[in-house]
Amino acid sequence: MSSPTEATAARTVDPTTKLAIETIKTLSIDGVQKANSGHPGTPMGLAEIAHSIFAVHMRHDPSDPAWIGRDRFVLSCGHASMLIYSMLHLSGYGLPLEQLQQFRQWDSLTPGHPEVHHTVGVETTTGPLGQGVGNSVGFALAQRMMEARFGEPFAGQHVFCICSDGDLMEGISGEASSIAGHLGLSNLIVMYDDNKITIEGETELAFSEDVGGRYEAYGWFVQRIDGHNLTEIDHAIKKAKLMKDRPSFIVCRTHIANGAPNAHDTAGAHGAPLGDEEIAKVKSLAGWDATKKFFVPEEVRAFWKKRGDELKAEHAAWNDRYQAWRGKNAEQAKNLDAFLSKETPKDLLAQLIKAMPEKDAATRDSSNAIQCAAAKLVPQLVGGSADLAPSTKTLMKGEGNVARGEFAGRNLHFGIREHGMGAVCNALGLFGGLIPYGSTFLIFSDYMRPSIRLSCIMHTQVIWVYTHDSIFVGEDGPTHQPIEQLGSLRLIPGLHVVRPADSMEVAAAWTMAIERKDGPTLFSLTRQKLPNLKRDAGFSIQSLVRGAYVLSDCAGKPDAIIIATGSEVQLAVGAKERLEKSGKKVRVVSAPCLEVFAEQSPEYQESVLPKGVRRVSIEAGRTPPWRSIVGLEGLALGIDHYGASAPDKVLAEKFGFSVDSVTKSIEAWI
Amino acid sequence: MSSPTEATAARTVDPTTKLAIETIKTLSIDGVQKANSGHPGTPMGLAEIAHSIFAVHMRHDPSDPAWIGRDRFVLSCGHASMLIYSMLHLSGYGLPLEQLQQFRQWDSLTPGHPEVHHTVGVETTTGPLGQGVGNSVGFALAQRMMEARFGEPFAGQHVFCICSDGDLMEGISGEASSIAGHLGLSNLIVMYDDNKITIEGETELAFSEDVGGRYEAYGWFVQRIDGHNLTEIDHAIKKAKLMKDRPSFIVCRTHIANGAPNAHDTAGAHGAPLGDEEIAKVKSLAGWDATKKFFVPEEVRAFWKKRGDELKAEHAAWNDRYQAWRGKNAEQAKNLDAFLSKETPKDLLAQLIKAMPEKDAATRDSSNAIQCAAAKLVPQLVGGSADLAPSTKTLMKGEGNVARGEFAGRNLHFGIREHGMGAVCNALGLFGGLIPYGSTFLIFSDYMRPSIRLSCIMHTQVIWVYTHDSIFVGEDGPTHQPIEQLGSLRLIPGLHVVRPADSMEVAAAWTMAIERKDGPTLFSLTRQKLPNLKRDAGFSIQSLVRGAYVLSDCAGKPDAIIIATGSEVQLAVGAKERLEKSGKKVRVVSAPCLEVFAEQSPEYQESVLPKGVRRVSIEAGRTPPWRSIVGLEGLALGIDHYGASAPDKVLAEKFGFSVDSVTKSIEAWI
Repeated sequence: MSSPTEATAARTVDPTTKLAIETIKTLSIDGVQKANSGHPGTPMGLAEIAHSIFAVHMRHDPSDPAWIGRDRFVLSCGHASMLIYSMLHLSGYGLPLEQLQQFRQWDSLTPGHPEVHHTVGVETTTGPLGQGVGNSVGFALAQRMMEARFGEPFAGQHVFCICSDGDLMEGISGEASSIAGHLGLSNLIVMYDDNKITIEGETELAFSEDVGGRYEAYGWFVQRIDGHNLTEIDHAIKKAKLMKDRPSFIVCRTHIANGAPNAHDTAGAHGAPLGDEEIAKVKSLAGWDATKKFFVPEEVRAFWKKRGDELKAEHAAWNDRYQAWRGKNAEQAKNLDAFLSKETPKDLLAQLIKAMPEKDAATRDSSNAIQCAAAKLVPQLVGGSADLAPSTKTLMKGEGNVARGEFAGRNLHFGIREHGMGAVCNALGLFGGLIPYGSTFLIFSDYMRPSIRLSCIMHTQVIWVYTHDSIFVGEDGPTHQPIEQLGSLRLIPGLHVVRPADSMEVAAAWTMAIERKDGPTLFSLTRQKLPNLKRDAGFSIQSLVRGAYVLSDCAGKPDAIIIATGSEVQLAVGAKERLEKSGKKVRVVSAPCLEVFAEQSPEYQESVLPKGVRRVSIEAGRTPPWRSIVGLEGLALGIDHYGASAPDKVLAEKFGFSVDSVTKSIEAWI
Repeated sequence: MSSPTEATAARTVDPTTKLAIETIKTLSIDGVQKANSGHPGTPMGLAEIAHSIFAVHMRHDPSDPAWIGRDRFVLSCGHASMLIYSMLHLSGYGLPLEQLQQFRQWDSLTPGHPEVHHTVGVETTTGPLGQGVGNSVGFALAQRMMEARFGEPFAGQHVFCICSDGDLMEGISGEASSIAGHLGLSNLIVMYDDNKITIEGETELAFSEDVGGRYEAYGWFVQRIDGHNLTEIDHAIKKAKLMKDRPSFIVCRTHIANGAPNAHDTAGAHGAPLGDEEIAKVKSLAGWDATKKFFVPEEVRAFWKKRGDELKAEHAAWNDRYQAWRGKNAEQAKNLDAFLSKETPKDLLAQLIKAMPEKDAATRDSSNAIQCAAAKLVPQLVGGSADLAPSTKTLMKGEGNVARGEFAGRNLHFGIREHGMGAVCNALGLFGGLIPYGSTFLIFSDYMRPSIRLSCIMHTQVIWVYTHDSIFVGEDGPTHQPIEQLGSLRLIPGLHVVRPADSMEVAAAWTMAIERKDGPTLFSLTRQKLPNLKRDAGFSIQSLVRGAYVLSDCAGKPDAIIIATGSEVQLAVGAKERLEKSGKKVRVVSAPCLEVFAEQSPEYQESVLPKGVRRVSIEAGRTPPWRSIVGLEGLALGIDHYGASAPDKVLAEKFGFSVDSVTKSIEAWI
């Protein structure tokens, strides 16, 4: 906390402040009205809180939104997006008034929900409820982890989050908040917009719990205030900043559409424009000219100009401290640059291949060996599992744990909270500097699918490490055996799904994931042991990272190509051997990542899967998605029903995943 | 509560009880050891609690597991399945000892996680953590709703749930528990196995919140006891049963692998067999013959025989009351039979078609009109939305709300808790008598996917009503626009995904969903208005429920067949008209449900989609799944990237969903 920021708090009662707050409201409702779509009530109810954060308490410099020393702001109730657009416009982030007039229109900088990398000043994409609370926890954790590594540049940062009833009803926010309380993330301040209104009516319809009490149980410092009283807001945030061992949760009693005579406190104000008449009344009641739209009074412009200069000055002071730190810590400063640019070794694949276990291994086991080697080469790598590290084999040996007061470690313990893990990892990836991974069983990717999707939408580098990736989980039975998961994850636009067939492909998987800086990569790994595959002479390791490649070829034009992934590649190899005995010519293609293969040149794709050759696919998952590879005339071997509880070898036999069974199916089809 | 059950509590300190509890432990660890796979520590830690529930407090009759007056037991920590199998065996549910010896083996009645409809006495399939807690809330709610409708037959029932740390870390349990507290479900008693151990080690690694405090905040009655002290267990359950306005949460401090000298209190005892040596020590310490396996002492057999007789007598007494009730309430009794058999009108489709709005309507709107009509015809129908009823249009007009103390209503308010809604609906469907539906935006099906999957695994009749089903959501933007959801939901085995193209198909959708008693049906409905389609003369309404049908044909063999769903069928019709002008012969097939179409006879399928005719698909979602219909040579029109925030008509133009654009694409391809 720097004192100049604090000092401005006194201003919050003067007429200019009143005007500045009214401007937030009028811009927001004008924006929604012009779009004829959106959420006007919430920005009105949150104007005082947002003003207090942006104008008084948050350390930021609108002229340099990428400043690494900045506090972060998350609007978890992303539907109230006009609030953040109004704040970004007013405080000087370079979002023009014309863009506010283009709210929710094609190609505007003001989409329906805030989108990171699209609108400058937006830190994360919000809208799906609860995710923003989880991201805030992740930002606060990232800050602590970066501070533990580098000190000064990350000292004193806070994360401010505004959230709604909806955010707090969603389980994901509970999961993430429990993690935040556990880790004592006192740099996190969540302001709860307790307006008692939801879409269906009053929150009393479905939400009567003691939310503050729940946060106390999570180990947070909880305050309860009038969310329209600037003095109370100011004091509460100051007290929150004084906390040393607990995150802060501030229950702000607010009124939706505060300042609108008829819409005030109504569910109708949630999701529909107020109407011109009501908007005119809002402006008249405040003493404004009711005919003016998107109007920003001169006093408010002047206020933000002055405040912007103060914030710049704070930034300059920070910069002096930062440069002094760089001067005194040259090695650390170099490391920091490498973190922030996510610089990674150029020969990563070759180095990781050296770390492969020699013996046959489950891909979850070879993954651990390779990940531990990667950890030495890529210090940015941090992450953990949803209480399954001993099973998913994702602990980085020799690296410390992250725990309350201990943020220099690299191994995180998320607890049995997949969805919370997802949102936290997304923010670790967005913060800058860290390359996070999150792990659980593949079946439980279903528990965190919205976060996986958001990592794709946001182009965030996150590594999702999923193991126990098929019916070969065995005894745990149908609830734990993925059937449709691989196919359905491959449908999420932007996701790279990598299912390695042996240790060498695992090394490639880690390489691809670490080198993909602009999006997430998902691993699908086995519980059961797999043989190290024999590859054709002349095989180049570079083909491993091209998504699919010829693992084992035949002389001349093949009668059939068998395409397989992961644990089923060995079946393809076995079937090829058998089929060749009866004179068939067969090529085996291993396809660890169909999405990366689709990005290769048409020539490369044709060289691997030439048109006009009949195709067979083998994967222990649903078969319809494979029709996009093998066509209607091809043969897609897989499993289209739920599994069963039995040892994996029994299931392989019963469900047709033996060399014998696969060979017979191919012979019958050929 | 009937006094005979209570009276037996005093027995819990005698030597036979001690022996009975030891038998639970030895059967459980022997089962895991023989399987060489499973979770021995948790059944050992829960033996006293399970004994107290099954032998003392639960109203059940093992000789009639389907007794409608029974209490229900849910083992939310399904991995501790040997506990329930031991209890079912001992208490006389007809699960033979040989089946305990076949734990986790192919085709046994004792799979890795408990499966409803597979093992008699198992009320719901558990294993994916948190779901069982949610199901318990649903059972308790169902009981209250059935009691409000029928009285006596459902009076005095309780739901007992045992859950673990993992269950309570998962957000879904928090969501459901908040609903339970809100509704004051005092018939629900959750026993929390607070053993301080998780897979990664001690819960302190990631779980330091005050769980009891959190449940108090949810509005529950919370007690804290020694989970190995039978007197404390007994008193706590008695006190819980006395509660009239709050569900009960009993924090039971337990020790994992209690009674095992070395495994006691260790994470190792969670997920791996104890080993023969340790098992021998457990038995020796208890004074048992260490060489005997799967041994049930005669005294324990005698105890359960006697207890079984007492429970039968209680059931007989209940039966007398029940028959007296039937005698006095003939009409009600007839209704009850219709509820329990899920009897629905034979001419449902014809009746629902009459309820169609005449004007063009969004399918969410026609769905509401038809649902309200269905509600009159199908009194079993109950449900609600995750705080989106005004948007998803799922309120049944004229029907009351369900609220605290008011359970005769039919409209539920789940709050913004999709996943909790999913687990609650699954249990409403399992309870017997009710046909539940749960609603939200299609995009948020991702938040509840594990519950959707479980409704399929369990063959439970639930109707998932999802609206705002494409980019035509419009202004809300990419976070709210489904792209991959339709394709990925269709991959869940057993799910029927119905995407109606107009009001008439909506009537068919409701008919299919209501008539499908053995599995879930999912609706994908539009936000935007759709035209009522013109169908060929001679069209039979029965074809509407066959999954796909010829909507508009051409004379002679078509040059192409356009297959479309939902809002894109109108584009197919428009393109057909254009193409016919240039002399092409085109058939349009509307395919509201691909899964039901796949179940039709090969002849019917051939009559709709004859082989050898080139195919085009149109759906505002990912295209690769459509390759299983149109093949590699067909044309799949859709969208393979995220949407954008803009009015829906703009998006239609930009993303190629206009008749013009579709026609051009088909012309180029033909």
